[in-house]
Amino acid sequence: MEFTHFDSAGNAIMVDVSGKDVTARTAVAQGSIKVSTEIMEAIKNGTSKKGDVLGVARVAGIMATKRTSELIPMCHPLPLNKCSIDFTADADAGTVTAICTVCTDGKTGVEMEALTGVSVCLLTIYDMCKAIDKRMCIGDIHLVSKQGGKSGNFSY
Amino acid sequence: MEFTHFDSAGNAIMVDVSGKDVTARTAVAQGSIKVSTEIMEAIKNGTSKKGDVLGVARVAGIMATKRTSELIPMCHPLPLNKCSIDFTADADAGTVTAICTVCTDGKTGVEMEALTGVSVCLLTIYDMCKAIDKRMCIGDIHLVSKQGGKSGNFSY
Amino acid sequence: MEFTHFDSAGNAIMVDVSGKDVTARTAVAQGSIKVSTEIMEAIKNGTSKKGDVLGVARVAGIMATKRTSELIPMCHPLPLNKCSIDFTADADAGTVTAICTVCTDGKTGVEMEALTGVSVCLLTIYDMCKAIDKRMCIGDIHLVSKQGGKSGNFSY
Amino acid sequence: MEFTHFDSAGNAIMVDVSGKDVTARTAVAQGSIKVSTEIMEAIKNGTSKKGDVLGVARVAGIMATKRTSELIPMCHPLPLNKCSIDFTADADAGTVTAICTVCTDGKTGVEMEALTGVSVCLLTIYDMCKAIDKRMCIGDIHLVSKQGGKSGNFSY
Amino acid sequence: MEFTHFDSAGNAIMVDVSGKDVTARTAVAQGSIKVSTEIMEAIKNGTSKKGDVLGVARVAGIMATKRTSELIPMCHPLPLNKCSIDFTADADAGTVTAICTVCTDGKTGVEMEALTGVSVCLLTIYDMCKAIDKRMCIGDIHLVSKQGGKSGNFSY
Amino acid sequence: MEFTHFDSAGNAIMVDVSGKDVTARTAVAQGSIKVSTEIMEAIKNGTSKKGDVLGVARVAGIMATKRTSELIPMCHPLPLNKCSIDFTADADAGTVTAICTVCTDGKTGVEMEALTGVSVCLLTIYDMCKAIDKRMCIGDIHLVSKQGGKSGNFSY
Repeated sequence: MEFTHFDSAGNAIMVDVSGKDVTARTAVAQGSIKVSTEIMEAIKNGTSKKGDVLGVARVAGIMATKRTSELIPMCHPLPLNKCSIDFTADADAGTVTAICTVCTDGKTGVEMEALTGVSVCLLTIYDMCKAIDKRMCIGDIHLVSKQGGKSGNFSY
Repeated sequence: MEFTHFDSAGNAIMVDVSGKDVTARTAVAQGSIKVSTEIMEAIKNGTSKKGDVLGVARVAGIMATKRTSELIPMCHPLPLNKCSIDFTADADAGTVTAICTVCTDGKTGVEMEALTGVSVCLLTIYDMCKAIDKRMCIGDIHLVSKQGGKSGNFSY
Repeated sequence: MEFTHFDSAGNAIMVDVSGKDVTARTAVAQGSIKVSTEIMEAIKNGTSKKGDVLGVARVAGIMATKRTSELIPMCHPLPLNKCSIDFTADADAGTVTAICTVCTDGKTGVEMEALTGVSVCLLTIYDMCKAIDKRMCIGDIHLVSKQGGKSGNFSY
Repeated sequence: MEFTHFDSAGNAIMVDVSGKDVTARTAVAQGSIKVSTEIMEAIKNGTSKKGDVLGVARVAGIMATKRTSELIPMCHPLPLNKCSIDFTADADAGTVTAICTVCTDGKTGVEMEALTGVSVCLLTIYDMCKAIDKRMCIGDIHLVSKQGGKSGNFSY
Repeated sequence: MEFTHFDSAGNAIMVDVSGKDVTARTAVAQGSIKVSTEIMEAIKNGTSKKGDVLGVARVAGIMATKRTSELIPMCHPLPLNKCSIDFTADADAGTVTAICTVCTDGKTGVEMEALTGVSVCLLTIYDMCKAIDKRMCIGDIHLVSKQGGKSGNFSY
Repeated sequence: MEFTHFDSAGNAIMVDVSGKDVTARTAVAQGSIKVSTEIMEAIKNGTSKKGDVLGVARVAGIMATKRTSELIPMCHPLPLNKCSIDFTADADAGTVTAICTVCTDGKTGVEMEALTGVSVCLLTIYDMCKAIDKRMCIGDIHLVSKQGGKSGNFSY
């Protein structure tokens, strides 16, 4: 296996996908943020009543998927067919998990879009809650699954 | 302690910093990506010879710090005085760690800029290496320290 | 009829258009700005002689159509085939009207692109003229017509 | 009175504010969207229960204020101290009104930021509701008041 | 021959490409920067050892191709299939030449993308080296060749 | 003399300007595009009558100065006080020259802003005229002068 984002001389390239087929592609990524009990409580109350942290973070994450190719240097720009972000919370573990699903019809996949959506979503949670406690930690960001494309399906 | 990014009715706001002093502010954030032995080897070789994954990721991360207020909804736009990203690698643990330092003179801190720089830097490593193995995991993203501003210094 | 930009749990989503056909789509939107006699005179003179307010506003509006999906959170990014902006002026009513036409071949329409083009075009007229008089008012922004797509043709 | 955004030869310029003082500046702008009874009902229910149209529109409007100088050609880029968006609804008139307040310390005002925030906020409401009825109309966008700067205070 | 980016009334338009075929299109552009002996030496050393000016400039140029339609007012936004930038240096002439290749499947060509990639790449070299000597000069930026599309192939 | 945009280990950095004074800074840059007789004629006619190539190019160049720090990786983001672009044409030489002036009060200069404004302005002329003849050439882009800052004044 070799890098595809470098040519044979080691120069970074946006790899040529001209010869690849346009196919339906889906990617799902997730990640979590570990927060204090106080923040977990505030997020839960906010969602149901006021101060909707997760609602704002969802919007930020969805918008970020559309900016992925501006942020990731060798990432191909491509239209998107769908984007959604769901949350689960584990009060005992003190973690909020964001799951981002992205679909396209394209010559290349949307793994980076899903991962970028998750990352910006979690960063936004951090920003909205950091006045309460800065000791949050973002982690476990990974690709959950992908479908479509020559390299086939993947699940973590 | 309460959310500052919501008003008393629970509506999201970009909080008013008009009355705060312009002071020198620094933030340091870090995060890591767990990679396979094969990728770790490729990154190391790349850095010294060709296919400079970390060089591209550093540029991406620095550029992302300048886009932070576009990505994080309630984040104030502000000029930056400095940005740098350093890497350490732990071959045994299979992790590459990125450390981002950002400075400004402003009415608000640059924690989100440092955290965004780290996140996009690690996402870029993922993108550059994902043709080899998609089973990477990004984690341990947190604020290491901050100086300046009314809330004083912080270290994790 | 129901919202399509929310899922069944009420969460905002970029709605899935994967199953929709790629068809030729056109949207026309318009809006107006009410200005003082003095500004109306200045705009007219400017267009024919110097200080081309409408020329600058047209460029701003066309460029804005290309940024629509960055501005409108749940809007799909898509390539555009055409964009033009025309103006009419009603000296008696004191209004300048901008009409924006946008075409694409896509799975979703370009209504928001046309409306965004009109809005930024009129905001630019405001900006260029506000040193003369700030009491301008922007209004009557609506979709004039659309063609193409499953929901069929529309005219206001 | 004359255009300031054109030089004496009629060429568009970003006007020189070098000699102006940095002062605290505030601008308030507002605008409305006329919607059907069905949409008004949906927005109200959404806000309290699910499908929070106004919450998404508020985030979009606040984010847009930060992009103003990218959209309006002769507008100066400047940092912002505060941004908030409030809504009122008039069920009888069938209108939702957005009011955007922006503050900065700068050499130039934030009128365009407030007007851009209102415009993108209302466009987002349009986008979120257009599956129900496309016959909405955006209007009455104007500057409500400004404070600070050489030209003094203004109220509509 | 006539302008295509203006309508019959002389108004700037994003020209209608709706009727054009989607075909494979390639464009190659190049340009050079004239630098002092000292800078030429620094660039060469940097590339092989440390301070990789050309590596950073390549990333900047590739990223800029993706922003072309945001920068060039009447340029159509379109996805890209490939982008690469290569360098040659002529020590005697004191010039570094950047060659940018861009591919797409689209209704319109990628000439502007290739030219924008070259321009931003050379501007980045200027920025990285200007502390040593500001007397650099960027020139000879032109389209080398294009393939595909109704107007056929072109070579300079 | 040494690179300032690399640290002692050769890593690219956005150099620390924290200790520098905020001073008034101006930069002037210029560049030219060589065009055919036919295009020169079209540009001249357009400016006076219709099809205002230079008017559109001026707007594009001014807007690009505001995006400089997004395009040039190690460039500091900073507010601008002024931006203007002037043109001269030499019919015998077949060249149109763009001169861009940018002012700020900042800790770092605006050379890159002026050079970026010139470059995007000339690229826009290319785009607007390329349907007539693609054999244009952009060149002679250089810094004309700068004032302010520790490194003092410069003139080419």
